[in-house]
Amino acid sequence: MKNNQFAIAPTDHETRVAELQRIRLLQPDELTTLTPNELWTKLLLRIHIADHSQALDHEWLNSLLATPDLSITDWLSQSQPMTNEVFYLVALQILQFEPAIDFSIHAPIDGMNKIQLPMEQHEQWTNNDIIDAFYLLLNTRTKLGQNLLDRLTSQGMFTWTYSLPASEKPLYFNGKPIASFDPDRFIREVVYVETDMDTDYDGMADLVKVEIMRPADTNNGLKVPAVFTASPYNQGTNDKWGEEITHNVNVPLTHKDPHYQSPNEPDFPMSYQKHQVNGESQTASESFSSTPAYTLNTYLSVRGYAIVYASGIGTKNSDGLQTCGSPEQTDSMKAVVEWLHGDRRAFTDRTSGIEIHATWCNGNVGMTGRSYLGTLATAVATTGVPGLKAIVSEAAISNWYDYYRENGLVMAPGGFQGEDADVLAAETFSRTKSPADYRRIEKTNNKYMKGIEAAEDRLTGNYNGFWSHRNYIPNVDNIKCDVMMVHGLNDWNVKPVNVKNLYDSLQEMPNTSKLILHQGQHIYINAFRSLDFSEMINLWFANKLWDLDNNADEILPDVLVQDNVQPETWRTYTNWSGNHSTTLFLTDNALTPTEPNSVSAVEFDDHQDDKTYHAWCDQQSEWAKALLNDMDGKFSAHFVGTPLDQDWVLRGTPTLKVRVASSADHGLISARLVDRGRAKRLTISPVILAKDGLELAYHFGKDDLREFELQKQFTDAKVISYGHINLQNRHDASTVDDLKANQFVDVELPLQPVFHTLKAGHQLELIIYATDYEMTLRGNEAISYQIAPEHCQLIIPNN
Amino acid sequence: MKNNQFAIAPTDHETRVAELQRIRLLQPDELTTLTPNELWTKLLLRIHIADHSQALDHEWLNSLLATPDLSITDWLSQSQPMTNEVFYLVALQILQFEPAIDFSIHAPIDGMNKIQLPMEQHEQWTNNDIIDAFYLLLNTRTKLGQNLLDRLTSQGMFTWTYSLPASEKPLYFNGKPIASFDPDRFIREVVYVETDMDTDYDGMADLVKVEIMRPADTNNGLKVPAVFTASPYNQGTNDKWGEEITHNVNVPLTHKDPHYQSPNEPDFPMSYQKHQVNGESQTASESFSSTPAYTLNTYLSVRGYAIVYASGIGTKNSDGLQTCGSPEQTDSMKAVVEWLHGDRRAFTDRTSGIEIHATWCNGNVGMTGRSYLGTLATAVATTGVPGLKAIVSEAAISNWYDYYRENGLVMAPGGFQGEDADVLAAETFSRTKSPADYRRIEKTNNKYMKGIEAAEDRLTGNYNGFWSHRNYIPNVDNIKCDVMMVHGLNDWNVKPVNVKNLYDSLQEMPNTSKLILHQGQHIYINAFRSLDFSEMINLWFANKLWDLDNNADEILPDVLVQDNVQPETWRTYTNWSGNHSTTLFLTDNALTPTEPNSVSAVEFDDHQDDKTYHAWCDQQSEWAKALLNDMDGKFSAHFVGTPLDQDWVLRGTPTLKVRVASSADHGLISARLVDRGRAKRLTISPVILAKDGLELAYHFGKDDLREFELQKQFTDAKVISYGHINLQNRHDASTVDDLKANQFVDVELPLQPVFHTLKAGHQLELIIYATDYEMTLRGNEAISYQIAPEHCQLIIPNN
Repeated sequence: MKNNQFAIAPTDHETRVAELQRIRLLQPDELTTLTPNELWTKLLLRIHIADHSQALDHEWLNSLLATPDLSITDWLSQSQPMTNEVFYLVALQILQFEPAIDFSIHAPIDGMNKIQLPMEQHEQWTNNDIIDAFYLLLNTRTKLGQNLLDRLTSQGMFTWTYSLPASEKPLYFNGKPIASFDPDRFIREVVYVETDMDTDYDGMADLVKVEIMRPADTNNGLKVPAVFTASPYNQGTNDKWGEEITHNVNVPLTHKDPHYQSPNEPDFPMSYQKHQVNGESQTASESFSSTPAYTLNTYLSVRGYAIVYASGIGTKNSDGLQTCGSPEQTDSMKAVVEWLHGDRRAFTDRTSGIEIHATWCNGNVGMTGRSYLGTLATAVATTGVPGLKAIVSEAAISNWYDYYRENGLVMAPGGFQGEDADVLAAETFSRTKSPADYRRIEKTNNKYMKGIEAAEDRLTGNYNGFWSHRNYIPNVDNIKCDVMMVHGLNDWNVKPVNVKNLYDSLQEMPNTSKLILHQGQHIYINAFRSLDFSEMINLWFANKLWDLDNNADEILPDVLVQDNVQPETWRTYTNWSGNHSTTLFLTDNALTPTEPNSVSAVEFDDHQDDKTYHAWCDQQSEWAKALLNDMDGKFSAHFVGTPLDQDWVLRGTPTLKVRVASSADHGLISARLVDRGRAKRLTISPVILAKDGLELAYHFGKDDLREFELQKQFTDAKVISYGHINLQNRHDASTVDDLKANQFVDVELPLQPVFHTLKAGHQLELIIYATDYEMTLRGNEAISYQIAPEHCQLIIPNN
Repeated sequence: MKNNQFAIAPTDHETRVAELQRIRLLQPDELTTLTPNELWTKLLLRIHIADHSQALDHEWLNSLLATPDLSITDWLSQSQPMTNEVFYLVALQILQFEPAIDFSIHAPIDGMNKIQLPMEQHEQWTNNDIIDAFYLLLNTRTKLGQNLLDRLTSQGMFTWTYSLPASEKPLYFNGKPIASFDPDRFIREVVYVETDMDTDYDGMADLVKVEIMRPADTNNGLKVPAVFTASPYNQGTNDKWGEEITHNVNVPLTHKDPHYQSPNEPDFPMSYQKHQVNGESQTASESFSSTPAYTLNTYLSVRGYAIVYASGIGTKNSDGLQTCGSPEQTDSMKAVVEWLHGDRRAFTDRTSGIEIHATWCNGNVGMTGRSYLGTLATAVATTGVPGLKAIVSEAAISNWYDYYRENGLVMAPGGFQGEDADVLAAETFSRTKSPADYRRIEKTNNKYMKGIEAAEDRLTGNYNGFWSHRNYIPNVDNIKCDVMMVHGLNDWNVKPVNVKNLYDSLQEMPNTSKLILHQGQHIYINAFRSLDFSEMINLWFANKLWDLDNNADEILPDVLVQDNVQPETWRTYTNWSGNHSTTLFLTDNALTPTEPNSVSAVEFDDHQDDKTYHAWCDQQSEWAKALLNDMDGKFSAHFVGTPLDQDWVLRGTPTLKVRVASSADHGLISARLVDRGRAKRLTISPVILAKDGLELAYHFGKDDLREFELQKQFTDAKVISYGHINLQNRHDASTVDDLKANQFVDVELPLQPVFHTLKAGHQLELIIYATDYEMTLRGNEAISYQIAPEHCQLIIPNN
């Protein structure tokens, strides 16, 4: 087990003393009246809150080892001076590490180093040293995936802070608010924010439902920031409907007419009525008991951040239709930020006209969430809305064309063949969950759904007006807030190109931007044992939302990347891409650094026999395996580099240049980059170390503690990047080029960005093929492709 | 989706009115002053607690359909009389069922029937009819796996009951206590119960730690029953140590000497000192914040049952050693019941001698828990300890020989090859978690561990003194409490023979016994959507522990079995085994109902080539697949029945009689019964329908909502029973018979009990083989076996 902490704020001795006193772990006179051992014992007993008697205190000290052979009580009775070994042997036990498993009782300092726990060692320990080391210990993570302070919090140590006056909150420790807000007294209320649109054609401005959970202290004058998660899923989903309208992908690609214009998407009314205001209320009329929660938000809630969820237009109890990423959906979420910031109207319900204000909010808003949720955080940020100070954009789409299309091709998010914008709109249109409301809107919605199905244009796969409305990248220069991006390098659902484009655009802006790349797929990382992500967000939000001057931007790394070889290893960088690149040439099944002379052409056949075709359609993973093993090039062309002499770190967006001909007047080229080499790789998904093992507060909220581990079995290869392009979109995704059968054309195909270490002994492999059973249309046409290798290049960015 | 409810107590109209008034859903005058539609509307609005304004009430009624085209508000405005269709269309929506997915809005009564929801229909609805139907509705399960009353509870509807005086608690509704105990005010305390043993040889009686969570009302005079879960795992486990000492099973079976005596297990001291009493305290000195919990207990806790956990001897903060199912371990758990019942001493800590009594307990104790936990519930029940009124024994071992041995063979629990009693003792010896305590006991424990490793006797696999100490079946006649057994028909870990033997023994006793057989493996069933298990336990425990006269024994079925063909289908029976049996004969690869004439002998070879052997040792599931497909009988003999004309229900313990010869002077015979037929079968494990989707109370405890579904893929066969026997244990497991190479011997092998429907068209198949890579030793000896089919029979109990 290895610990990685980035949220510990450097702190001087005086601050440590003051903060320990503030959280009542230290009394002012103790620094002068006690010996170091007495002070240490006092601190130890103060953090053991289960015991309320001397007998139990004694038993506890007698249950822990101070040396390999003496318990703490036995060791104390010998009146020896404190040593590094004693302090850290006890520290390891306090941090829940286990002798023989995590460390040796005979070498605690080695254990601390091996686990990567911070230490302060001394020749002779003074009281100040005890204080400093103990302070650091409180900020050090236990084996259970939370720092010691948070573990003590989850044991109830700081419930006394609940009753502190609002004026003394939040209570900060090491630059972060601690859990001083009583979750049993949270106020849960619902308001309806009025938007500037009428997407359900009823003549009235759409209202959107907002669910708020805020500390009771906000009723006593405390103003708190809001952490807002925009989730179209939160009011329920229509999974069966989505399945039913999922598109058939077993259809052929066709020749595109360069003059074809895809239909426009439906317009919404320009004029509509605002809701009449009939009065104002200080209190909400509607409450709720629970709503699907992001556990990071739950962690933050007891630390004083108000937590806000809204599902936006087209969801249960809101007006409007589901537009899948349109500017209207963005604006419906922006409206929530505006209300929180005091710039927009909300009502206590949808009919009475009674207004209600977010008087409890300090006007600072952060947004969080993964996938669609993170997408909307990004989208709202690109509006530059006042009040939005920071977003944590996780696994977020930055351009819906990069989600459902690619270079003139219909492209599935990994695992969701046949999904498209209209399908997602249907799945999230939760007004179905209010059956009478749905009966009234059903026809309007069905008509609108037909409109977006046409406008998304699966016929050509081209970039058009529909997609440009759903591309947030051109508006990045409007962003006024700071941005933390989190993305999985193995996310085949929201592919890494989404975060790469956002990251690159932000590098030209003055805003703070932070990037975390992990080895997962489409997941949250806040319950990882090896990384203090929740503490990082708490530190960062303390700065952005509580306006605490804690140097968060300087403390947190700009780019943090999880290693793909060593488990539990996170490295810091200053940017994503390396400064150099390597050009590789294609020759007889090989990748070479030197330009080859003449190379014979390569041909492969995209057509499969019926049985194989149906089997691969049913089990796409079987196709993916077959592709990796198709070394004789039946339906793909393989180019393999020589085994590496040393590790090679690939960083950034690889580019493939190909000269290719299709035997038909249409066609596509796909490519995969493969890390070829036998190794025990990280698990695809994090392993659950302890179900509900992470307590987010005292008796309030739990999460499953997780971590990537090395797989038990060796594997021979891993796909690290890929790309696809329609041979009729050689210039760009919106421009159709002509194509004739057997005409050689040059295409330049950017592959998914990477940050990957190819181990010494491994080989880089390029696979060029056509139909991608996991992502593209698959019509199983009788088409063959010819590659002219001497006109192909693979450019790999690296250190 | 199909609903199955067994815990609804039949109730007359007067009781319904009284109970609805008691939970404040009905005011006394409303039956006379309101019209049926007004009364219905009033009741609807009272269960919609999120809204606090007329506007929101109106919006809510306007969001639900009363007819296919009218909302409730629209329908009410037409002043039409209530109909069955209106009442149940609304009811379906209240119960969270969804139009188009779960039912048609045009046929709500059909929908209610299809989902198996209880109904009361009327030609003309009176106020009394409204009341009665609404009462029934509150007891009806929603789509989300809890009855409507519990759903309202989880929304906070009954928090007002928290402040009722202790004298008015518990508050019963339909024969079950409702959640009227405030979880935020639970008292969590620790005591140390003194036992009558010294299993760690320190001269002092062992103390065991007990964790108690009880309502604050118990400090105001309310006496409550205790639900006690005895879990050796609760203080932590030593998984790595367990792995390290797991036994090598890749060793050959050997010839047994009939005169061999296995060593006795270590004795514990007969004399030791009791702890001195130095005083008494009304309050505990130690508290705890959380302990691993069974979610059924959490559900019960807010309904007033005190929840008690103890890990027993040999665990963290307790004295003693881990003995794996010995009488001492049982007695350490029995001691906890005795303390709860007022018959035994406990202290506030392990050293001070301050006594503490369970003054808050009404003296009635129930025990719950699965696997080892349920095993100890069974074991404690067989002591006949006063105070223990009922146990829910889930997936419990009734005889450890049936867990780690079988008919003279070392036998692994499914999935745990090489585990044995000593390994489990090491895994659960959590005194390691107090490192200084462990250093003091390490040598004593290591010596004891050597003793039990010898006494468990992996050499012979025979039944001996060690195993007889761990067989609870002979003591079943001591049981004084009522017993509910729950077991998975596909539990290969704690195999069904364990519950069958307990069930059979109990049938000869006057105690109430109940049996639930589900289609799962080694799992809990309290979060299934299709079965009201938690309500059943609440009803039963209300009777057993709160002494409520609610006819629980009559209401609950004696035997409840989940169907293996239809999902979400639970059927009631009066006993497990059928009254008849069918004898099948073995002939040329076939099972026939008529005795064949001469049949040629069958031979198979147990030896595998090295590559196959190692592959199967590594991946036992590959061996299991190969066994099913070994139709030409290379290493097994297959006998297949004819396809069935009609469904055939197999109930009870199948028996196989075999005449067999081994080519060596030792050997074993294994058998599997297979349901051979292409079908979509139930998923192996329940599918998670909603993570944390089941709220156990208001903001207190969640569980993942689960259900078995039909698998997406067809499968060709499923193993439904199996058995193994050492050819040297032809008489019984403790008697060794001699065996010579090639000597034909007769063995009678009871297979695992079944309750299984073989569908029409399916075939029953018997596979006879030797080495079971999943469960037996596997030495890969060059042994062949001969079967004499004309002397073999398979006897199948059935209806």
